[in-house]
Amino acid sequence: MNAAVSASRRRPFTIEPWSVREPELDLGRMAQTESVFALSNGHLGLRGNLDEGEPHAVPGSYLNSFYESRPLPHAEAGYGYPESGQTIINVTNGKLIRLLVDDEPLDTRYGELFSHTRVLDLRAGTLTRDTGWVSPAGRAVRVRSERLVSLTQRAVAAIDYRVEPVDAPVLVVVQSELVANEEVPRPVDVDPRATAVLIAPLAHARHRADPTGATLLHRTKRSGLLMAASMDHEVYGPDGVSVQCTATEHIGRTTVICRLLPGQQLRLVKYLAYGWSGQRSPSALDDQVRAALAAARYTGWDGLVAQQREYLDDFWSSADVEIDGDAELQQAVRCALFHVMQAGARAERRAIPAKGLTGPGYDGHTFWDTETYVLAVLTYLVPDAGADALRWRQSILPLALERATQLGLQGAAFPWRTISGQECSGYWPAGTAAFHINADISDAVLRHVAATADTDFERGTGLELLVGTARLWRSLGHHDAEGEFRIDGVTGPDEYSAIADNNVYTNLMAQQNLRAAAELSARHPRAAAALGVDAEEMASWRNAAGAMRIPYDEKLAVHPQAEGFTDHAVWDFADEPPEHYPLMLHHPYFDLYRKQVVKQADLVLAMQLRPDAFSDPEQMARNFAYYEQITVRDSSLSAAVQSAMAALTGHLDLAYDYLGETALIDLDDLAGNTGDGMHLASLAGSWTAIVAGFGGMRAGQDGRLAFAPHLPSSLARVSFGMHWRGLHLRVAITPDEAEYRLLRGGSAQLIHHDEEIELSGGEPQRCPIPALPPREQPEQPPGRAPAPRRPRG
Amino acid sequence: MNAAVSASRRRPFTIEPWSVREPELDLGRMAQTESVFALSNGHLGLRGNLDEGEPHAVPGSYLNSFYESRPLPHAEAGYGYPESGQTIINVTNGKLIRLLVDDEPLDTRYGELFSHTRVLDLRAGTLTRDTGWVSPAGRAVRVRSERLVSLTQRAVAAIDYRVEPVDAPVLVVVQSELVANEEVPRPVDVDPRATAVLIAPLAHARHRADPTGATLLHRTKRSGLLMAASMDHEVYGPDGVSVQCTATEHIGRTTVICRLLPGQQLRLVKYLAYGWSGQRSPSALDDQVRAALAAARYTGWDGLVAQQREYLDDFWSSADVEIDGDAELQQAVRCALFHVMQAGARAERRAIPAKGLTGPGYDGHTFWDTETYVLAVLTYLVPDAGADALRWRQSILPLALERATQLGLQGAAFPWRTISGQECSGYWPAGTAAFHINADISDAVLRHVAATADTDFERGTGLELLVGTARLWRSLGHHDAEGEFRIDGVTGPDEYSAIADNNVYTNLMAQQNLRAAAELSARHPRAAAALGVDAEEMASWRNAAGAMRIPYDEKLAVHPQAEGFTDHAVWDFADEPPEHYPLMLHHPYFDLYRKQVVKQADLVLAMQLRPDAFSDPEQMARNFAYYEQITVRDSSLSAAVQSAMAALTGHLDLAYDYLGETALIDLDDLAGNTGDGMHLASLAGSWTAIVAGFGGMRAGQDGRLAFAPHLPSSLARVSFGMHWRGLHLRVAITPDEAEYRLLRGGSAQLIHHDEEIELSGGEPQRCPIPALPPREQPEQPPGRAPAPRRPRG
Repeated sequence: MNAAVSASRRRPFTIEPWSVREPELDLGRMAQTESVFALSNGHLGLRGNLDEGEPHAVPGSYLNSFYESRPLPHAEAGYGYPESGQTIINVTNGKLIRLLVDDEPLDTRYGELFSHTRVLDLRAGTLTRDTGWVSPAGRAVRVRSERLVSLTQRAVAAIDYRVEPVDAPVLVVVQSELVANEEVPRPVDVDPRATAVLIAPLAHARHRADPTGATLLHRTKRSGLLMAASMDHEVYGPDGVSVQCTATEHIGRTTVICRLLPGQQLRLVKYLAYGWSGQRSPSALDDQVRAALAAARYTGWDGLVAQQREYLDDFWSSADVEIDGDAELQQAVRCALFHVMQAGARAERRAIPAKGLTGPGYDGHTFWDTETYVLAVLTYLVPDAGADALRWRQSILPLALERATQLGLQGAAFPWRTISGQECSGYWPAGTAAFHINADISDAVLRHVAATADTDFERGTGLELLVGTARLWRSLGHHDAEGEFRIDGVTGPDEYSAIADNNVYTNLMAQQNLRAAAELSARHPRAAAALGVDAEEMASWRNAAGAMRIPYDEKLAVHPQAEGFTDHAVWDFADEPPEHYPLMLHHPYFDLYRKQVVKQADLVLAMQLRPDAFSDPEQMARNFAYYEQITVRDSSLSAAVQSAMAALTGHLDLAYDYLGETALIDLDDLAGNTGDGMHLASLAGSWTAIVAGFGGMRAGQDGRLAFAPHLPSSLARVSFGMHWRGLHLRVAITPDEAEYRLLRGGSAQLIHHDEEIELSGGEPQRCPIPALPPREQPEQPPGRAPAPRRPRG
Repeated sequence: MNAAVSASRRRPFTIEPWSVREPELDLGRMAQTESVFALSNGHLGLRGNLDEGEPHAVPGSYLNSFYESRPLPHAEAGYGYPESGQTIINVTNGKLIRLLVDDEPLDTRYGELFSHTRVLDLRAGTLTRDTGWVSPAGRAVRVRSERLVSLTQRAVAAIDYRVEPVDAPVLVVVQSELVANEEVPRPVDVDPRATAVLIAPLAHARHRADPTGATLLHRTKRSGLLMAASMDHEVYGPDGVSVQCTATEHIGRTTVICRLLPGQQLRLVKYLAYGWSGQRSPSALDDQVRAALAAARYTGWDGLVAQQREYLDDFWSSADVEIDGDAELQQAVRCALFHVMQAGARAERRAIPAKGLTGPGYDGHTFWDTETYVLAVLTYLVPDAGADALRWRQSILPLALERATQLGLQGAAFPWRTISGQECSGYWPAGTAAFHINADISDAVLRHVAATADTDFERGTGLELLVGTARLWRSLGHHDAEGEFRIDGVTGPDEYSAIADNNVYTNLMAQQNLRAAAELSARHPRAAAALGVDAEEMASWRNAAGAMRIPYDEKLAVHPQAEGFTDHAVWDFADEPPEHYPLMLHHPYFDLYRKQVVKQADLVLAMQLRPDAFSDPEQMARNFAYYEQITVRDSSLSAAVQSAMAALTGHLDLAYDYLGETALIDLDDLAGNTGDGMHLASLAGSWTAIVAGFGGMRAGQDGRLAFAPHLPSSLARVSFGMHWRGLHLRVAITPDEAEYRLLRGGSAQLIHHDEEIELSGGEPQRCPIPALPPREQPEQPPGRAPAPRRPRG
């Protein structure tokens, strides 16, 4: 079958439980497939570009936190505006393997592609490709490649590349390369001056041809970061194979030539090692990648493959989610977990970007998505990775303290978007003003501490982050004449509102932050004292938390998202044509901000994260229904939260619809921009929607773990697992009962629908699921209801 | 005396009743004196640069609305953001007259300046300069120049330039020039790309040497506007004077050479004509400036001088303000009126920029300053100029309608800042969101109609502007569930708040706008019908106006500036060092916006413009005192309003202090940036502070003119005049009584302190002034009280 744009197919993948398979090459979907097929370990990321480099949509090789600085222009300058941005750059491409067949380059746009398959194997952690191609001159070859980015050796990637003639002898030339400053498509939204800076950001530092490979060192021109990429090869083929290596400033090349008869094969195993540093010398970095490469070669291809599977077996043994009754969702959720795992696994005290290392979207920046969505999964599935992400926040505390000072505040003001810790937001009403990120970090700390009971972490990283952020809140808010503690003029999660007083989400999260900082300080008095915390300060935190203002609209009997929100005009949804979504591309912010229209869960997210503050289930249901009517989900961060809260307020089918949207966002390219990278928060949210929504999981900071499961009518069974304080727990839910079981660990107390249960050994506990009271179906704005989920496959 | 920076002197001018004199050259004050000595007629403006061009601070020659387009970069793009800015440019400099004395150029930085005076004569409308200079080689000359920008021939400027030797014969070479693309200092705040665009914005179109002059035509490179500058000369000197004219692409030059003996003089009269067009051809424009030049030469220097004085005699006969007891203030107020007159006199349906044509500040943009401050004076002193400024607004209505549509609104949304009508604001929270500009325009219309009773204007320009803006308000606001009409998420005059609900100023001004649109539509049914207004629409305007929400804080018994304002934390003024003002250069907007700190009168301006809405004088006094405590006057638009409202709430000495600040802003360079151009709004505000403050003038839309005069203790007598419905009225106030007299017109009914009085013929009416009730002195933030005014001179 030839490569073709097959617009009629909804998506380019088949439905399989443990893999994502592309059965034919669809050039029109290339950006999307490059993202979905991206391999990463959180340190190194390689987009799913074809081995031969072209055709491509967005070529991409990324090193976590390796960025270039660029100017941030402002039409009107203002105090405290960041002047410099950071953009992740496409580093030296080491995955390039070009092939000449009797002097004609393999390029799927020419000749005939008689077969094509790519498979992302979620258990093997590899991307394999099978291609059958006839050159324009009529020479037929089969190429099979398998690629991995090692989860066990973080500097390493490897490719097993094989080519064989189909029916007649061919002369093949394989050029395995390292290429710096590859041409990349220019970002559309970025200032032209910035684009200029990003066109060829790498300056040559050192290059070397090795006996069976090459090494290139480059430095970014403005940010001054040094990187090294090195490759080495094993070549297997018939006698007479020639191998030559060369290197110039921007290209390292290993050229392999041989004549192949039918039945013969040329096999190349390419080992890649990457490293970067802002401080180490070229010699040190050069040695570092040499060492990594030596280790990879020592392990060998088969060894790397085996380690990869071992790592993933371990991961899936506790992390797997089984969904009976919806094969499409089954695949999507596993693919989601795979990408979330990839983003965090070896990030090791570096930021986890909103797109992981799967694409250039959002400039490679990290937002609150990490703490609120991604860590909400990693904490339970890869707890060490979760801890490391928070230790990264701790490592940028000095910058956050500096930023707070610049803003006239105390404590730590974490950046809204950043790579290396400096604020990079160019629009403060939806950047600096979104102070909730500080409470989101604290929330992630508390979640991690509750889930792991890791006291060292609590006393070290945890306390420092909580104290810094509590101090911020204390100075950001004030007690009014009645004694209430107000936080004015800030922006909550919903980006269709900004600069509002007493945003309920922000205030509730700040309240938790302040309270917990006081509690932790009391629990670790010596560590707290070392941070300068005294009893007076703790009291002021408790007082502020206790007096926190939470506005309430008595007439509507709902919580306004922020002070006065429910007095605003409701957006005129009826007059909004479908093509005007997302609204922000068709309406000015000023109009969105002043009306009741919600881009993404805000008050509804507050209910998910602070259920204790909404003790009356009827109140929760009223709030949920109210915000359903005005939420348009123009952000990919919304559906997961709406799914969880729909489930918790008894709307299971609606929850199921939203779950489909959040889980399939990239496999179905629902936001139309998967090509820029995977939507990690949305993917992670699908796990939370299942576990916190259908599972009704609540993880108390007191160590109590509660479930209140319910399944939507379409699903026969859902099971999920999680780490909890050293235990591995697995929960299986059917329409009528839930089964709890410990896979590891001696015993546990759980709560099932308000009833305590005891687990011990591997003995399952089965508990009946009570019926739900009927509730009126909430409504969405016209045309904005989620697609009704009809299970496929 | 040699030129020197004399930092010890407070200001570079002597105090004289009818002129502004610089008795010595102060290079450190050059930017300021260039602005103060700028001559303009509203169409053409020449900064007070020295004839020989250098030294200079900011060379400047401006044509009203002649601008270059430049990119407006945004760190993060958004729907509806303007992509292109407009910047007034320094056009071809025709005021250059270079002098060589025995081969050495006259440059005051070299040789010895043994005398120097410059005088701006406020009655003659000329700038004269007397310079005595000894060249480094010891040749002494006297140069006297006199310059005018004609108020009667708007395309024309002229310079009478004389040079004579002091004691020994000299060979003099005079080069009288036209120079395009002069080097100007780069603006600091502007994006480098924009600066690049503005460096040499004029592209050559045509040049010609004439027998005694030259002509240059240029076109702006991006905005495509064509301009022509032409010069002609009369030369008077001893026999043997040589006159030669040349022209190249960017320079026209008339070179005059002669040998002068002591007692002899070389005199050059330079006539300049300027024109520009976005539509006419080079030939047409060339002819246009030739014709203007011919007319100027026909009138001759003496004729131009005589016309100038005649125009000003007429202006001062009604406009003069006499202040007995404060010579400094007397001078300042006359200088202020002169500059306001200059800015508006011949603008003729072009914008009046915030700096007039006196400097490059604010990119040469027009803001609401024009309607609310400048037209509040022009309407009463040069009514035709006021009408023309509003006709300019009418002329850009199509762009305002388009902008409203882009923003999803009905009616007209006028630009916050512009030159030719397109929105040029790069920061929407203090740009697009400041919708009050639309009500400010309507307010100026209503003021003009009340003051002139011009029914044609009312039915034409007035109705169209009122209907367009009323439609905007109707679509911008909404009735809430209780029926109140709310206007949410807008920015009022105070730029230390933004995006607030129900800003009292905005709502009151919108209320007046809606009501008046309905009234005028009822009065001119046919004209209204032609605009599509029907009875339903009028009713909806009246309903919205009637239901307008005006928030009130019952606990504090004051009006919050906007919904919730008084719940915000009060700015920590005690901790603010004096060098941290203006606050916006030391604090982020987000923090200013969320606290009680006021940059400039907002609620207090509402009381000045809508006194009918604050009928209880005690309420006014409470409001005034409340906002005094939190207003820092970081804007030059504030002091005038605070002066007027201090007087109206019985704080006459405080009003006097504020009056000094607003009137002396440029003569004393109080804001430190007079060099960028004159603060026209602040200057105009000094008239309003006197007339509406001390005079207690209220001009009712019903045609009733009321006064409630009171003088501060330091002033013996203040008199002012104004046009009112064809009458010329003069009011003189002493501490005990007020005298009202008609200078022109048959009879009038006035109100003096709530009592009706009749005026007829030139017969003065004297009325006693009642005593003021004592009131507690309001307080300002620490360090922000106005300087106590001690009369000087």
